[in-house]
Amino acid sequence: MTLINKNYLKLKAGYLFPEIGRRVSEFVKANPDKKVIRMGIGDVTQPLVPSVVKAFHEGVEEMGHKETFRGYGPEQGYDFLRETIAKKAFQEKGIDISANEIIVSDGSKCDTGNIQEIFGTESKMAICDPVYPVYVDTTVMAGKTGEGDKDGHYSGIIYMPCTKENGFIPELPKERPDLIFLCFPNNPTGTVATKEELQKWVDYARKNKSIILYDAAYEAFITEPGIPHSIYEIKGAKEVAIEFRSFSKTAGFTGTRCAYTIIPDELVGYDEQGNAHQVRPLWLRRHTTKFNGVSYPVQKAAAAAFSDQGQKEVNEVIAYYLENARIMRESLSSLGYKVYGGINAPYIWLKTKDNMKSWDFFDKLLSVANVVGTPGSGFGSRGEGYFRFSSFADRPQVIEAMDRIKRLM
Amino acid sequence: MTLINKNYLKLKAGYLFPEIGRRVSEFVKANPDKKVIRMGIGDVTQPLVPSVVKAFHEGVEEMGHKETFRGYGPEQGYDFLRETIAKKAFQEKGIDISANEIIVSDGSKCDTGNIQEIFGTESKMAICDPVYPVYVDTTVMAGKTGEGDKDGHYSGIIYMPCTKENGFIPELPKERPDLIFLCFPNNPTGTVATKEELQKWVDYARKNKSIILYDAAYEAFITEPGIPHSIYEIKGAKEVAIEFRSFSKTAGFTGTRCAYTIIPDELVGYDEQGNAHQVRPLWLRRHTTKFNGVSYPVQKAAAAAFSDQGQKEVNEVIAYYLENARIMRESLSSLGYKVYGGINAPYIWLKTKDNMKSWDFFDKLLSVANVVGTPGSGFGSRGEGYFRFSSFADRPQVIEAMDRIKRLM
Repeated sequence: MTLINKNYLKLKAGYLFPEIGRRVSEFVKANPDKKVIRMGIGDVTQPLVPSVVKAFHEGVEEMGHKETFRGYGPEQGYDFLRETIAKKAFQEKGIDISANEIIVSDGSKCDTGNIQEIFGTESKMAICDPVYPVYVDTTVMAGKTGEGDKDGHYSGIIYMPCTKENGFIPELPKERPDLIFLCFPNNPTGTVATKEELQKWVDYARKNKSIILYDAAYEAFITEPGIPHSIYEIKGAKEVAIEFRSFSKTAGFTGTRCAYTIIPDELVGYDEQGNAHQVRPLWLRRHTTKFNGVSYPVQKAAAAAFSDQGQKEVNEVIAYYLENARIMRESLSSLGYKVYGGINAPYIWLKTKDNMKSWDFFDKLLSVANVVGTPGSGFGSRGEGYFRFSSFADRPQVIEAMDRIKRLM
Repeated sequence: MTLINKNYLKLKAGYLFPEIGRRVSEFVKANPDKKVIRMGIGDVTQPLVPSVVKAFHEGVEEMGHKETFRGYGPEQGYDFLRETIAKKAFQEKGIDISANEIIVSDGSKCDTGNIQEIFGTESKMAICDPVYPVYVDTTVMAGKTGEGDKDGHYSGIIYMPCTKENGFIPELPKERPDLIFLCFPNNPTGTVATKEELQKWVDYARKNKSIILYDAAYEAFITEPGIPHSIYEIKGAKEVAIEFRSFSKTAGFTGTRCAYTIIPDELVGYDEQGNAHQVRPLWLRRHTTKFNGVSYPVQKAAAAAFSDQGQKEVNEVIAYYLENARIMRESLSSLGYKVYGGINAPYIWLKTKDNMKSWDFFDKLLSVANVVGTPGSGFGSRGEGYFRFSSFADRPQVIEAMDRIKRLM
């Protein structure tokens, strides 16, 4: 008899988005005449920009000719892409990261999940509440927790509440964690952290020999000066932080698939005898053994997003989403809702009125305004009474959705 | 202090191909005038076929337009691809596999490594020797073994010797394994299994409630009638086998990245209380949580390999490699070498003369004939005294390499 991974049995059945999908399709079936506007899942709607499409085609064409065909590439990504990232995303912004410290992958969801594998199963994880559910689920799957309780909290995880009282920036944990998941600009709350706040976390991690897993998937949405785009803008961060970045939201790659992880030279973990080991070689070992690189034309397309023209084009798309966010923020505020985020982030985090439950708000919004969003409680129990709107949508739909909410709710 | 995954420290430092790379570049540096012919790593050399390139371009173009743009796709692959695979690779060949049982991924290396995660860490693995090193390394990384010995064998793994005495088909293990890795056509030996042989394994697995992990990455190279292309041609296999398939060697996708795994409805694993659980939902849960689907244009390109024209084109490429294999087999045989494989497989498995050690043969072949192959001992201690040639090469180079071996060695 072959045993399954018992940790999978601890997972709560309903992942958030399937449940949303179920309720929406039930509604659509019962109300075939209603035009539902979807602002739930954080998926981009604008096409790949022309510079990216052009390079993508060129990559495909190269694959069709003997002289330019490419078979297996380096698992950690082609040098041309890693060097472009190092230069454009870091060095030209005064951040000391080299191509060698960058490992290309097919997605930040994959990276933030798989990274757990190179650390001991005894690792104690600190995770925000509310949070992107993947951090929690992959922690459970990795056997780093006990059972879940009725709030969806698993024993063994250090939960860090993010509430309006602390401005959705968690406090430093009292119990020492081994690994700390942080995400700024935050999904789902749309919050950003200042340099001072991040410095506190870096100092804490250095003092406690903890490692920060810093998800910067939404950094391109930062508009205000002074807000750090990378944790490596913070003094000492290279000793204690792994950063995750993605082309998904930056360049519309959700269906194209490319991302990267930065693991600095300085970052170490320890064996049971207390000997320090560089972390990057462990990740490279995982990458070379269990992954085989990103499709070459995709890497070529990703690099094109960093060209001058590519940057101009992707920035226009980001500005489009941020203008959506502005319209949503202002409309919802004018209706008396307290809203957060949406300035340096694509997400609007709304406090329901009269502490209405998140799923009740979801059902009302769907049935009355025929608009779909994401219940805050789906991101964790501290998200109860909140609701996430995504600005990844088409302008006319955003305007129509806001108008319906104004007229009908 | 944050602990690293201690199992990574058990891994032997040198993965085979980096060591080959090191010796080759050292030789090239010392002998810049020599033209080295590489027949080592199993990487395709022929470009993507026209039907695939056309569909790939179409997919890219769709991503560049609002009306046809696709964001996140289903993690398990688009229906159009899964249905095409089910129909063309299975149903039209009389094999009962449905689209629902197929899960698309970015590579069989990834799948054969990651699949371990859904089974208990206490699982006992049965692995051939010699073998594709990824099965062993990912078993070690998953914490399913003890330390390695001087032969590169890890305690806790049931090794199944594949020798010329047993025709490179392992015997049924005496100790019961939970999971059994089998690969036919085999890498590295080029051997295939008959229906009768596979039936023995399926019966054994059913009797022992074991699960077979069947790597069929090279099935497209089977030329002889009667040799099973899929383990599901065997009675009872759907209850006990997971099959891995790839577009890498079939359609030249080593740099393009697409593969799929079949987990039948009937396949179950057990929890500690002895309750049966379907295995596919566990893999889907992993896939949806730690993976985000294959790039849409790549899936479109993969589906095109199954069109009538696509099939004609990819079969021509496979015939090209198989003709290389024939030339190599016949040349090496005529020189008095005993060779295996190369009929239903892209690999030639050569017995060195006078029991010359694999790495000694490698060094001699490189320095005398300036030809690179793969030392059999790199695939396991039972590969000592053997050598793998890959037919993934250009015809003129194959002819030149054989000529040099004939003249110089």
